[in-house]
Amino acid sequence: MLVRNIGRNWDTSVVTDDGLRYFDDYLPGASYDCGSFSVSEDEIVSFARQFDPQPFHVDPGAAARGPFGGLVASGWHTAALVMRQLVDHYLPAAASLGSPGLDEMRWLNPVRPGDTVRVQATVMEARRSHSKPDRGIMKTVVEAVNQDGETVMRAIATNFLRVRPDSDS
Amino acid sequence: MLVRNIGRNWDTSVVTDDGLRYFDDYLPGASYDCGSFSVSEDEIVSFARQFDPQPFHVDPGAAARGPFGGLVASGWHTAALVMRQLVDHYLPAAASLGSPGLDEMRWLNPVRPGDTVRVQATVMEARRSHSKPDRGIMKTVVEAVNQDGETVMRAIATNFLRVRPDSDS
Repeated sequence: MLVRNIGRNWDTSVVTDDGLRYFDDYLPGASYDCGSFSVSEDEIVSFARQFDPQPFHVDPGAAARGPFGGLVASGWHTAALVMRQLVDHYLPAAASLGSPGLDEMRWLNPVRPGDTVRVQATVMEARRSHSKPDRGIMKTVVEAVNQDGETVMRAIATNFLRVRPDSDS
Repeated sequence: MLVRNIGRNWDTSVVTDDGLRYFDDYLPGASYDCGSFSVSEDEIVSFARQFDPQPFHVDPGAAARGPFGGLVASGWHTAALVMRQLVDHYLPAAASLGSPGLDEMRWLNPVRPGDTVRVQATVMEARRSHSKPDRGIMKTVVEAVNQDGETVMRAIATNFLRVRPDSDS
């Protein structure tokens, strides 16, 4: 779903909401609501036992005495849950060619059991590749905000996307 | 395990291998071997079905025709597996106070089923916090290299760590 841009000075007046299928459809300044996810204590502990077993992610008792005053999700769990929203609402299956990385990944506030986190993606930059003319390179500001309006995660993601097959621009 | 530094001009001559327990123990230039992980096709598909269900992560047939010529792990799966090695070999449970984020995250080569990936952590910067004197702020270059010597992931992670309780420097 296309939403207004989120407080920057980009011109969104030309943006249409025709759906995102190819690189050509992503216009700088357009923001997309990518839906929300919730996360339970069991899910937080289960993910963290496997990938990030620090006390404040896996042990409610230790977490209560720890730096966050309670159990919090691994930042990698948050990132993975955010990714799922992007795959479902922002990155087109037929055109996505993977990502070379991301920048300025920030975990700004903890995600706690029961939190509901909404994900928003804003196209920051989109340019055709010179070396591989079948694709474009897009940068997206990804923001994840909890039910209290606090930003929990922010990052600038880079993605490769196929251009529309008949595109010759 | 402390290893030589990895091709930079840092002086590692003062580094000792006494174990990493507090902020004070992390000296810029020191590199640590954080062990390795392997990942199977089942694990790749299972993680990606939950968090990153793009065709080249979940569907071997589609993946064979896709941009990587075969199934590859979600970059978020690789990142989570790398994190586990850092928790087990680099970040001290008693002193770790979480991470505000990371920079320059790069997925440089795909991780494929059966790959074995070794993780190395190099202390890039370590400074005491001015505002919170109980802690230090450390930046680490994290590198993950597969069995063929190809770097699959690289990032600069920031971590907050408690200083040694009797530390007054």
